[in-house]
Amino acid sequence: MTVTGSSTEVALAYLREHADKHLLGLDEFLRMESVSADPTKKDVMVRTAQWIADEFTKIGFENARLTDTRSHPVVTADWLHAGPDKPTVLVYCHYDVQPTDPLDAWVRPPFEPRYENDIVYARGCGDDKGQLYMHLRAAEAWLRGVGHLPINLRVVFEGDEEHLSEPVAEFISAHPELLAADVCIVSDSDMQDDHGTPAIAYGLRGIAYWEVRVQGPFQDVHSGSYGGGVENPANVLVRMLASLVDDDGRVTVPGFYDRVQDLTDAERAAYAAVPFDLAEWLSATGITEPMLGERGWTLFERLSGRPTFDINGIWGGYQGEGSKTIIPGWAAAKISTRLVPDQDPREIEGLMIAHLESIAPPTVRVTVKSLSNGWPAVTPIDHLAVEAAARASEKAFGKAAVFHRSGGSIPYVPELDRQLGIKSVMVGWASPNGNFHAPNEWMPMANYRGGLDAIVHLWDELSRLTADEVRAGQKAD
Amino acid sequence: MTVTGSSTEVALAYLREHADKHLLGLDEFLRMESVSADPTKKDVMVRTAQWIADEFTKIGFENARLTDTRSHPVVTADWLHAGPDKPTVLVYCHYDVQPTDPLDAWVRPPFEPRYENDIVYARGCGDDKGQLYMHLRAAEAWLRGVGHLPINLRVVFEGDEEHLSEPVAEFISAHPELLAADVCIVSDSDMQDDHGTPAIAYGLRGIAYWEVRVQGPFQDVHSGSYGGGVENPANVLVRMLASLVDDDGRVTVPGFYDRVQDLTDAERAAYAAVPFDLAEWLSATGITEPMLGERGWTLFERLSGRPTFDINGIWGGYQGEGSKTIIPGWAAAKISTRLVPDQDPREIEGLMIAHLESIAPPTVRVTVKSLSNGWPAVTPIDHLAVEAAARASEKAFGKAAVFHRSGGSIPYVPELDRQLGIKSVMVGWASPNGNFHAPNEWMPMANYRGGLDAIVHLWDELSRLTADEVRAGQKAD
Repeated sequence: MTVTGSSTEVALAYLREHADKHLLGLDEFLRMESVSADPTKKDVMVRTAQWIADEFTKIGFENARLTDTRSHPVVTADWLHAGPDKPTVLVYCHYDVQPTDPLDAWVRPPFEPRYENDIVYARGCGDDKGQLYMHLRAAEAWLRGVGHLPINLRVVFEGDEEHLSEPVAEFISAHPELLAADVCIVSDSDMQDDHGTPAIAYGLRGIAYWEVRVQGPFQDVHSGSYGGGVENPANVLVRMLASLVDDDGRVTVPGFYDRVQDLTDAERAAYAAVPFDLAEWLSATGITEPMLGERGWTLFERLSGRPTFDINGIWGGYQGEGSKTIIPGWAAAKISTRLVPDQDPREIEGLMIAHLESIAPPTVRVTVKSLSNGWPAVTPIDHLAVEAAARASEKAFGKAAVFHRSGGSIPYVPELDRQLGIKSVMVGWASPNGNFHAPNEWMPMANYRGGLDAIVHLWDELSRLTADEVRAGQKAD
Repeated sequence: MTVTGSSTEVALAYLREHADKHLLGLDEFLRMESVSADPTKKDVMVRTAQWIADEFTKIGFENARLTDTRSHPVVTADWLHAGPDKPTVLVYCHYDVQPTDPLDAWVRPPFEPRYENDIVYARGCGDDKGQLYMHLRAAEAWLRGVGHLPINLRVVFEGDEEHLSEPVAEFISAHPELLAADVCIVSDSDMQDDHGTPAIAYGLRGIAYWEVRVQGPFQDVHSGSYGGGVENPANVLVRMLASLVDDDGRVTVPGFYDRVQDLTDAERAAYAAVPFDLAEWLSATGITEPMLGERGWTLFERLSGRPTFDINGIWGGYQGEGSKTIIPGWAAAKISTRLVPDQDPREIEGLMIAHLESIAPPTVRVTVKSLSNGWPAVTPIDHLAVEAAARASEKAFGKAAVFHRSGGSIPYVPELDRQLGIKSVMVGWASPNGNFHAPNEWMPMANYRGGLDAIVHLWDELSRLTADEVRAGQKAD
């Protein structure tokens, strides 16, 4: 078959022509049991990483290599022959997947992909191996179909996204030369809905996460003998935690909001334009109405544009059958705050610890341990790469893209910004209801096909800008 | 040896004479592994009950029998030959003991009694087999030494005190004829200190105990994707529980205090006279200062004379190592209130459930399950049997007794009062620091010897009153 027309059209035609072969490759990739948290899968992780490196080499990438980290290897490769005036784009995905338990809840084993009604079911099909694979085949479409990429392209694929945050930050600081780029495209997100509405995420929340422990008596004591005299550490814990959010839904830690950048008018307008289906959103979690939340912000704004306070776990005292009449010796909780630009997780950590200490009664011993933290990040909503991603998505899916920040954290994104000054645009094609971290993960094949096309278009869109413009995010004056 | 003098002196002399033989019997009794909560010990429980029945028969009691319950048998026996004008006294103890775990914390196995520095160490030595055994030998001293008891005496010993509250209430309603008495002496309590100060407890707190469960989304959801929009059931639970106690240390459930009878002036004077050693009390639990508690009441008053609210257990969400970024699907807690006369546990249950439902936000599903409840009880502090117990204790220990209510619950006491109109006086000889429910339970042998003497004196003291006076608690006009 000979295709005439623009390079983009040639690349798109290549994808159509090789669709069946590409599907077989996807199937092979999804069968690899790359569960990063499973220590018995260390070899599988390496084999998966090597498979990716080999595939990129096969389609014409250079310097494909595995770099060891404290955990699983990072895969990098590049194709840098578009010329120095063309933008250099870095693509980030991850090849590790979530654990599969509870295994018996899967209709079919998680690593035996099932294709049914134009949907693929498999662990990692949406999060994130399916999306990584789209980048492989879209690059192939340019390199094999057209003969070259219209931009300089680097890829970086990590194997620890689902369980650790340290390796990637360490990798960035150890190997900046493998990541040098004008912008980063992150494909580890989802579409707005299951009706083909593309979504561009231009920001992420950060996080600060602690364990709080309240120690009372040195062991459980009898609630009859001591109740009313010995301070109950579980009573104290709930009192302290309850006080961290006020009646307006705001975190009460002094200074917590000092660096919060409110959503701009342009962002609020973009948020308002998102066709947010409340009923669908509610049914995805099984709740009947959303929380009241922070006063002054819409539900959709709160989900990604405002910080939160959540108890992630709590435990202490008797949890068995029936009743046991004790005052627990201690009680503990895992707590976290989601952060927004420009909150500094280390500063928040200091504020939180100081505040908890200040409200702890002298009758108990309160200790706070920091468990993890990550920075928030935001790329201006009118950044040229954001707009290019939107145009490419609209071309691929035939629907205008929506714009919002993401409520979660991808540690890679703020680290890349802070360490190397590279802004990220998140454009991905998973289903927002795709059971990423649950049994029967799924993705519409329409998202897979549209995602492939969107990447082809995106490289074309970005090639129309200079390296400097993409780096700056705006046209030169 | 021939003793001349009062009957009481004869009985006391009998105890001295048979001290060694009695100690061997105590040792035999403490070796029985009567752990009521251990389903593998069902046979041991029956053998222990039968041993008690046989021993009472041997010393001259009649009608010794085991009555089956839904759990372990109740032992009863009587000696009713003092004449109809003499008081009939019921003695209550329990022959079951607490579980022994953690076993490796015991210096010597819990059912191999150790005698060291005039202290006995063994599971049940204080709570409550040692005290039950004192009643056996004190009755023997009267029956064998003197030839008769000065009062009519019944005994009732249950085998479920440490793990269930239902069997005893059911037993009382099914077998009132085995319990008919003018007053009940309960020996399942401790002395005021380890310096020989006797303590008479004339009241007990009740209890109402629930499990509260807050259901949010149908499963754990990602705190990044949903934080700020999906109500966190753990956040809700701590907010609800924290709100149940106000800044004055009072329970906020409407109507909670409506039936509370404040301590009388006589009671507050008695409480004030108790030599309460704060430092010793603190060191027993490992805390450095008592809780602030309900405003307007001293620490010692609060420990038994005022109601409480305690979280006995709490759990939900992630409790493992490190961090997991979830909003839990649910969170739950065991909560209880200690009650004082005349609070009605079933009424309190209704008030609590209604209040929790009224403060539950519409974004979650709150369910409250009743786990157990028991009535408070009080016998007037100037009841003739209370005074008799104090005189008997002072004669035995050479120190004036102190008076207070007990902070815990003995379900038997209020049930006996409510079902049969029998008031109870609690006089016991365990050490207040005796590790009742912990490893290395211990009791000073001085308490054992003094307790034996006190019982001998108590039957003498009560024999100086008529049946009517003991039942009424006051002299006939």
